[in-house]
Amino acid sequence: MEPKQLWELSATEAAGLIRAGRVSSVELVEACLGRIRETEPQVEAWIYLDPEYALVQAKVSDEWRQSGRAIGGLHGVPVGLKDIIDTGDMRTPSRDAAVVERLRAAGAVIMGKTVTTEFATRTAGKTRNPHNPAHTPGGSSSGSAAAVAAGMVPLSLGSQTGGSTIRPGSYCGVYALKPTHGLVSRHGMFQLSRSLDHVGLFARTVEDLALLLEEVAGYDERDPDTHPRGRGPYRTVAMEEPPIEPRFGFFRSGRWSRVAEDAQAALGELVEHLGGRVEEFELSAGADELAEWHRVIMDAELAVNLGREWETGRDRLSAPLRARIEHGHAVRAPEYLTARAAAGPLMATFTELFEQRYDAILTPAVDGTAPAGLESTGEPTFCTLWTMLGLPSVSLPLLQGANGLPLGVQLVGPRHGDGRLLRTARWLAESVGV
Amino acid sequence: MEPKQLWELSATEAAGLIRAGRVSSVELVEACLGRIRETEPQVEAWIYLDPEYALVQAKVSDEWRQSGRAIGGLHGVPVGLKDIIDTGDMRTPSRDAAVVERLRAAGAVIMGKTVTTEFATRTAGKTRNPHNPAHTPGGSSSGSAAAVAAGMVPLSLGSQTGGSTIRPGSYCGVYALKPTHGLVSRHGMFQLSRSLDHVGLFARTVEDLALLLEEVAGYDERDPDTHPRGRGPYRTVAMEEPPIEPRFGFFRSGRWSRVAEDAQAALGELVEHLGGRVEEFELSAGADELAEWHRVIMDAELAVNLGREWETGRDRLSAPLRARIEHGHAVRAPEYLTARAAAGPLMATFTELFEQRYDAILTPAVDGTAPAGLESTGEPTFCTLWTMLGLPSVSLPLLQGANGLPLGVQLVGPRHGDGRLLRTARWLAESVGV
Repeated sequence: MEPKQLWELSATEAAGLIRAGRVSSVELVEACLGRIRETEPQVEAWIYLDPEYALVQAKVSDEWRQSGRAIGGLHGVPVGLKDIIDTGDMRTPSRDAAVVERLRAAGAVIMGKTVTTEFATRTAGKTRNPHNPAHTPGGSSSGSAAAVAAGMVPLSLGSQTGGSTIRPGSYCGVYALKPTHGLVSRHGMFQLSRSLDHVGLFARTVEDLALLLEEVAGYDERDPDTHPRGRGPYRTVAMEEPPIEPRFGFFRSGRWSRVAEDAQAALGELVEHLGGRVEEFELSAGADELAEWHRVIMDAELAVNLGREWETGRDRLSAPLRARIEHGHAVRAPEYLTARAAAGPLMATFTELFEQRYDAILTPAVDGTAPAGLESTGEPTFCTLWTMLGLPSVSLPLLQGANGLPLGVQLVGPRHGDGRLLRTARWLAESVGV
Repeated sequence: MEPKQLWELSATEAAGLIRAGRVSSVELVEACLGRIRETEPQVEAWIYLDPEYALVQAKVSDEWRQSGRAIGGLHGVPVGLKDIIDTGDMRTPSRDAAVVERLRAAGAVIMGKTVTTEFATRTAGKTRNPHNPAHTPGGSSSGSAAAVAAGMVPLSLGSQTGGSTIRPGSYCGVYALKPTHGLVSRHGMFQLSRSLDHVGLFARTVEDLALLLEEVAGYDERDPDTHPRGRGPYRTVAMEEPPIEPRFGFFRSGRWSRVAEDAQAALGELVEHLGGRVEEFELSAGADELAEWHRVIMDAELAVNLGREWETGRDRLSAPLRARIEHGHAVRAPEYLTARAAAGPLMATFTELFEQRYDAILTPAVDGTAPAGLESTGEPTFCTLWTMLGLPSVSLPLLQGANGLPLGVQLVGPRHGDGRLLRTARWLAESVGV
């Protein structure tokens, strides 16, 4: 077995070697830059990358460590940022977003900005799926998912308002986490919809997701939806053995018939593998209607948040986005408020399910593997419900389609159960031998 | 000087005498019921009152105390409740509202339900002003203000979505507090507008307001706008001497020209009395526009909250309320969201004013004394801004009009500065010899 290349290391491995002085951040970042030189022409994950500046950050990291001062959990480790996350030193004349402040405090090297779709909605960017360049990487966090999948960086951040983290995570075959709504501050990230926006996380192991979450989670008075009570530590919890083997609730959803046959079969095999640890459940009603409410909330909020773009240059917006803004303008306030309240009863149902029966819900992440072509970023349908409810969800690259492309399985946990959800995810990945 | 009648006691005095075993709750409640028999035919503050049931509660209180068990801060003290606050034992087949649970835990006797306007909006109920039955008591917390003013109960609860606590407090000559938005749970209170609804407090002394706030404030997971961080104790803070004499910012508002001449003169005298402790300030812009945004938010939210009444019997609603619901139905979601965001910049201005210059803002509570007639409950204009911003405000009965009717002065404090606002209010009341 050949030794791993540096760019192949997980963030946890890399951070450990840097801490121990066995690898320098400069060596790690150089390896990742080499990997980028090799794969970027095909993948096109980056919209901004300054190799020299990344190496300057790495060099500062190394000097800092050599001085014997305390170092953070991501010291010297490169991280990619979706291009809707502000930084004080790249592209936009802005200030660091809250998550960037936290990444820098943890010692991370900010590698660059990754490609997003148009305003984090549906119109695709240039990025291709690293597993097959003729296929979409998914969106809207296209570049962040693809960069991690291609080995360009071990970690990246994206966002999710519909299915923009879980979907590209599934298509690109990486681990992707949409944490509980309000767990990670969105201050300094482009706001599409305050009610629905989440920061999303990408990595190549569950432990790395937990490591990254540990560093970026927490209260921020500049994001009114974050919570004063932290629920960490996430990494410790994620790495514990579950006291008893977890129980899963299998939820096909009302849209199961739209799932491709090979994806249905792959999920079916996983359910079979779990045997008595999984039980199928259905919801009497309400789950499918939420997709319509999701659209009402998102369109009304994005119409406000894109108000300036609409007023000053609507011709530069894509036709689908213009249509969404027009729909948003037409939504009545009572309809919007009804949509906001619609999640309540269903949320109560899920709270009870998690308290009494399941550690996690097992459900499709997407309706199949990445579609061919770069025009569409695929269907977010299977993410909408969990985004709307603000529940933590993770996509695990445990399956593959008939075409050999990766296929994620989605696990969903209770509100603020992010650490335990990752623990359950790790158990599941290990139980299928990943 | 004649000794005080029992019904004249403040809640603090009464609770102290009960605690010391010098007065029983039954004696106190009997005295209040006597006062009600005497004044209710003229005032009509109550929509539900069962004297026997009040005495049963009082008797249980007395037995409890005599058993030597620990007692709460309001043990044996009667409190009136606005008729939009649910109880498990009066009128509505419902469960105790959060504030009622807290009052019972503090040992209070729930005296009965007081008159509200139509759905806590503007169409008047039967109550008359205790100072002159030809005049309105104000609304919508008409009965709660009038009952305390008439000596029927030392304490009562109402609500404020526009000016429904401060206005009747001013007209009826009692102390009235609208606490910081989210400080007191509204669970189990009729919801008109989640963004704007506040529980309101009435008493005949500042100390009593603080005593009552101490018991009803606090986090409640059933009201998503309450805060996990308590900021009490309110009573201790309210009763401290200010370390230095407080400074006041006098704010006439853009509507000063609508204030009656006698009220302008009375406020002017108070400002003169304060001398160097007060400074007039103006706002460059934004404060007056907020009244329009307030209407947008309130109408959109009440259209949803009165949806069932609208669908099943709109003919039974008053014409003004129907017009508000119709307006609410017509509000577009982006307009509503813009209104919700409109308070932000002004809030930042006030935060700075409170941090750097003033302990409290001194401003009109109303545009004059209670108008003659019972049709109108008066103008809430001078309360709208503080309701919209969620800032704590208190009306102090320190002034009177040319007609001899009481006139409140409004003090406004910083968010979550409720205890200090009451301390400043007490200082002001004492400085004018009340």
